[in-house]
Amino acid sequence: PEPFPPPPAGYPFPPYGGSYQPSQGSDDDWDDDWDDSSTVADEPGALGSSYPDYEAAGGGASGRYRLSTRSEPSLGPRGSSATVSRNLNRFSTFVKSGGEAFVLGEASGFVKDGDKLCVVLGPRGPEWQENPYPFQCSIEDPTKQTKFKGMKSYIAYKLVPSHTGQQVHRRYKHFDWLYGRLAEKFPVISVPHLPEKQATGRFEEDFISKRRKGLAWWMDHMCSHPVLAQCDAFQHFLTCPSTDEKAWKQGKRKAEKDEMVGANFFLTISVPTGPGASLDLQEVESQVDGFKAFTKKMDESALQLNHTANEFARKQVTGFKKEYQKVGHSFKCLSQAFELDQQAFSAGLNQAIAFTAEAYDAIGDLFADQPRQDLDPVMDLLALYQGHLANFPDIIHVQKGALTKVKESKRHVEEGKMELQKAEGIQERCNIISFATLAEINHFHKIRVRDFKSQMQHFLQQQILFFQKVTQKLEEALHKYDSV
Amino acid sequence: PEPFPPPPAGYPFPPYGGSYQPSQGSDDDWDDDWDDSSTVADEPGALGSSYPDYEAAGGGASGRYRLSTRSEPSLGPRGSSATVSRNLNRFSTFVKSGGEAFVLGEASGFVKDGDKLCVVLGPRGPEWQENPYPFQCSIEDPTKQTKFKGMKSYIAYKLVPSHTGQQVHRRYKHFDWLYGRLAEKFPVISVPHLPEKQATGRFEEDFISKRRKGLAWWMDHMCSHPVLAQCDAFQHFLTCPSTDEKAWKQGKRKAEKDEMVGANFFLTISVPTGPGASLDLQEVESQVDGFKAFTKKMDESALQLNHTANEFARKQVTGFKKEYQKVGHSFKCLSQAFELDQQAFSAGLNQAIAFTAEAYDAIGDLFADQPRQDLDPVMDLLALYQGHLANFPDIIHVQKGALTKVKESKRHVEEGKMELQKAEGIQERCNIISFATLAEINHFHKIRVRDFKSQMQHFLQQQILFFQKVTQKLEEALHKYDSV
Repeated sequence: PEPFPPPPAGYPFPPYGGSYQPSQGSDDDWDDDWDDSSTVADEPGALGSSYPDYEAAGGGASGRYRLSTRSEPSLGPRGSSATVSRNLNRFSTFVKSGGEAFVLGEASGFVKDGDKLCVVLGPRGPEWQENPYPFQCSIEDPTKQTKFKGMKSYIAYKLVPSHTGQQVHRRYKHFDWLYGRLAEKFPVISVPHLPEKQATGRFEEDFISKRRKGLAWWMDHMCSHPVLAQCDAFQHFLTCPSTDEKAWKQGKRKAEKDEMVGANFFLTISVPTGPGASLDLQEVESQVDGFKAFTKKMDESALQLNHTANEFARKQVTGFKKEYQKVGHSFKCLSQAFELDQQAFSAGLNQAIAFTAEAYDAIGDLFADQPRQDLDPVMDLLALYQGHLANFPDIIHVQKGALTKVKESKRHVEEGKMELQKAEGIQERCNIISFATLAEINHFHKIRVRDFKSQMQHFLQQQILFFQKVTQKLEEALHKYDSV
Repeated sequence: PEPFPPPPAGYPFPPYGGSYQPSQGSDDDWDDDWDDSSTVADEPGALGSSYPDYEAAGGGASGRYRLSTRSEPSLGPRGSSATVSRNLNRFSTFVKSGGEAFVLGEASGFVKDGDKLCVVLGPRGPEWQENPYPFQCSIEDPTKQTKFKGMKSYIAYKLVPSHTGQQVHRRYKHFDWLYGRLAEKFPVISVPHLPEKQATGRFEEDFISKRRKGLAWWMDHMCSHPVLAQCDAFQHFLTCPSTDEKAWKQGKRKAEKDEMVGANFFLTISVPTGPGASLDLQEVESQVDGFKAFTKKMDESALQLNHTANEFARKQVTGFKKEYQKVGHSFKCLSQAFELDQQAFSAGLNQAIAFTAEAYDAIGDLFADQPRQDLDPVMDLLALYQGHLANFPDIIHVQKGALTKVKESKRHVEEGKMELQKAEGIQERCNIISFATLAEINHFHKIRVRDFKSQMQHFLQQQILFFQKVTQKLEEALHKYDSV
C-alpha cells in the first residue's frame, strides 16, 4: 500500500476572484448567527492559484479534499478486515471520503427509492441520469436587512426557483451551510465553490453585486447537475419559506443527520448491468489519467488567462484610459489656442476640434468602463471553474484508491490470502465508483463546453459593442468637420 | 531706441519630427557636391521645441532669423542718417533683414514689372494677391543614384509640377539650396522649413519614405503661397531639366545674384492706395500683438500635441500591442488545454477559441501598425507648423522695428529734429511692411484652417477605419462559435 502523506503545509491560496481589485480575508457575516450555530470553516471561495501536484507520492496523494477540513466525514461502520490492509493515514482522501470503507464492503445503510442515483450509458460513456424535472433559480435583489433591533445587519438575496415560482430569501451563510452538507455527502461529485468571502466592505455595492453574480453562477452549476439539483438539502434550501423558521430548522437537522453520506453515498448509486456494462479496468485508468492531465493543463491555462484578463482590465482602467484622455486633452489645448483667432472662418474648425477632444475623453471613459462588461464575467467563470478543478484531484484520488484496492485484492487471491468472492465484491464496488467518476467527468466536459462557448460569445459581443461605440464617437466627431 | 540683444546662447533645438523614433544629427548628403559649392548651414528642419521668448528686452528682440545664420543678408547701401539713430547691434533681425534700411529709405533698386508683388484688401484685410496660375507639384519615387562610378550615393526625388507636367529630379541638397535663397530673399514671409536631416540611416526605407512625405508637405506649402510659388528661384528649381547642368548653374547663379532680396525685397511690394487704404498704426499693432499671442499659444499646444501623439504612438506600438497579444496568447493556451479533450463535441469550441486567439494577436498588430496611418501624418503637419511658428517671431520683430521707427520719427519731428517729409516717408514704408506682415498673417490662418481641417479629418477617418478593422476581426471570431 502506498503512503498517503498529509497535504503540503503552507499551500498557497491567493485570491482568484473575478475582479482586478483583489480582495481577501474572512467574512464576519459568517459568524453572525441567524438561527443555530454555524461552524467555523475554511473559505469555500478561496481557490488555489497553482494546481495541486497530483504526482506527489506516486498514486496521487496530496489532494486537499474540501470536506475534510470542514467537518469529519461520516464514515460507514468500520468492520475489521484481516487480509486487506487498511490505510490508516488520517489525511487520506480515499479513507476520509468513505471510498475505502465502501470498496471493502464496510458501508451499510438502507437506501430509500428516493435516494437512488442512476448512472446510465450515454453516447459518450457513463452519464448521470438526467433530471426529469429540470429547473433554474434566479438570484436577485440583494437587500440589507437587520435584526436584534438593528444591532446586526446582513444581506439577503431573493431566490426564485423556476419549478416552484415561490421566492425565498437566503443569506450567504445559508449558501455556505448547504455547501458544507453537499461537499460532505458527495465524495465523487464536484460541488461548485461559493464566491469568496471578503473581510471588509461587504455592504459596498460593488462587492454585493459581484457576490450576487458569483452566487448566480454557483446556482446555475447546482441546477445543471443532475445529482446536486435533486438532492434533498438543496431542495430544502430552495423551497423552505424564509418566514417558517421551524420548517427551516427541521430540514436543516434532517440534512445534517442524513446517513447516506460518504461511504453510504456510494450505496445509492445504481450502475448499468448486463453484458457490456462492466467497465474495463485498464480503460478506466487510462480515461481517468487523461482527465487528470486535462484538468492540470486547464488549471494552468485558466490561471494564466485570469492573470492576463486581470492585467488587461487594469491597463484599460488606468493606462488606456489615460492615453486616450491625454489625446483628448491635447486636442482641447489646440482648440483653445485656435480660439485666439477670432475670425469667423476659423470658428467651425475650433468647435470641431473641441468636439473631437470630448470624443477622445469619452473614449477613455469607455475603455475604463469596459472590463466590467466583458473581462469581469470571464474572470467570474474562471473562478468557478478553478473551484471545480480544485475538486477533481480528490475525486480522482478516490477512484484511484479503489482501483488500487482491486489490484491488491487480485494479488491476495493469487497468493491465497483472500477469497475470490470477496475480491469480486471489491471489484464490483470499484466498478460503481468508476461509473460515478466517469459520469462526473462527462458532466464536467458538458457544462465546460456550454459555459465557455457562451462566455466567449458574450465576451466577443461585448468587445464588438465597445469598439462600435468607440467608432460611433469618432464618426460623430468626424461629421463636425463637414461644415468647416 | 531699444537694445537688440543677440539670440540666447544654447537655444534648445531638440528634434520635433513626425516620428516617435526621434532622429537627429547632420546629413552628410549635405556635404556631397552635385555641382558647385554648397554652404555649411544650420539645419533647416531642426525646429525649436519651446517658443522663443518674444517678451525679452521689451520690444521683442530675441528672434532668431533663419537667414541670418545662413549668409549675410544683402542690405541696401547704407546712407548716413544724422537724426534717426541706427541700431548697430549686429544681431538685430530688424537690421539684418533689411527692414531698418528700407524703412529709413536707404534701399534702392530697379523693380522690374515681373518682380512686383501685390498686397490687396480682401474681406479679412490685407492679403497676398492670389497666384493667377495655381499649380501643385508631386514628389514621388525616391531612388538611390550614384556618381563617380559608385563612389557617391544619394537619393533623388521625382518632381512633377502640374503647370508643366515635366518631371525633374532633385536631391535634398537642392531643396536646401532653394530654402536658403528664399529665406534670404523674403524677410516677412514664412518660408516653410525642410524636413530635418539625419546623421545615420539616410538610405533606409523608413527614413526615405518619411523624408519624401516631409518634402511633399513642404512643397504643398510652397505651392500654396502666392509669393513663394511664383518666385524665380522656385520656378527654376521646379522646371529646369535635371539633365541640363548648364541651365541649372545659370539659374542658380542668377538666383544667388538676385538684388531684390532683404531691404530691396520691400521695394517690390505694392500696397493698396487711395482713401481707406492706409492702415491705422494702433490697429496694426493690436493685430500683430494678437497674432503674437496666438502663435505663442499655438506653439505650446502643438508641442504638447506632438508629445502626446508621440507617446500615444509609442504606447500602441509597445504596450497596447502587447496587451492584446497577451490576451491572444492566453486564449491560445486555453484552446490547447481544451484540445486534450478529444471528444468530437468539444472540437468546435477548441477551434473557435484558437481562432479568437489569432484575432487578438492580429488586433495587437493592427494597434502597432496604426500610428503610421494616423498619428505620423499629424506629427508631420505639426513639424511643418512648428517651422512656421519659429519663423514668425522674426517677421513680427521686423514689423515692430518699423513701427518703432515711425514712433521715433514722429517724436523727432515734434522736437524739430526731423523734416516732416522724411517722417512721412518712414511712415509710408512702414505701411508697406505692415501690409506685407498682415497679408502673411492672413495667409497663415488660411492654410492653417485648411491643413488642420483636412488633417483632423484624415486622422479621424483612419481611426474609424482602424476600429472597424478591429470590430471585423472580432466579428469573424464570434461567428466561429455559431456552429459549436
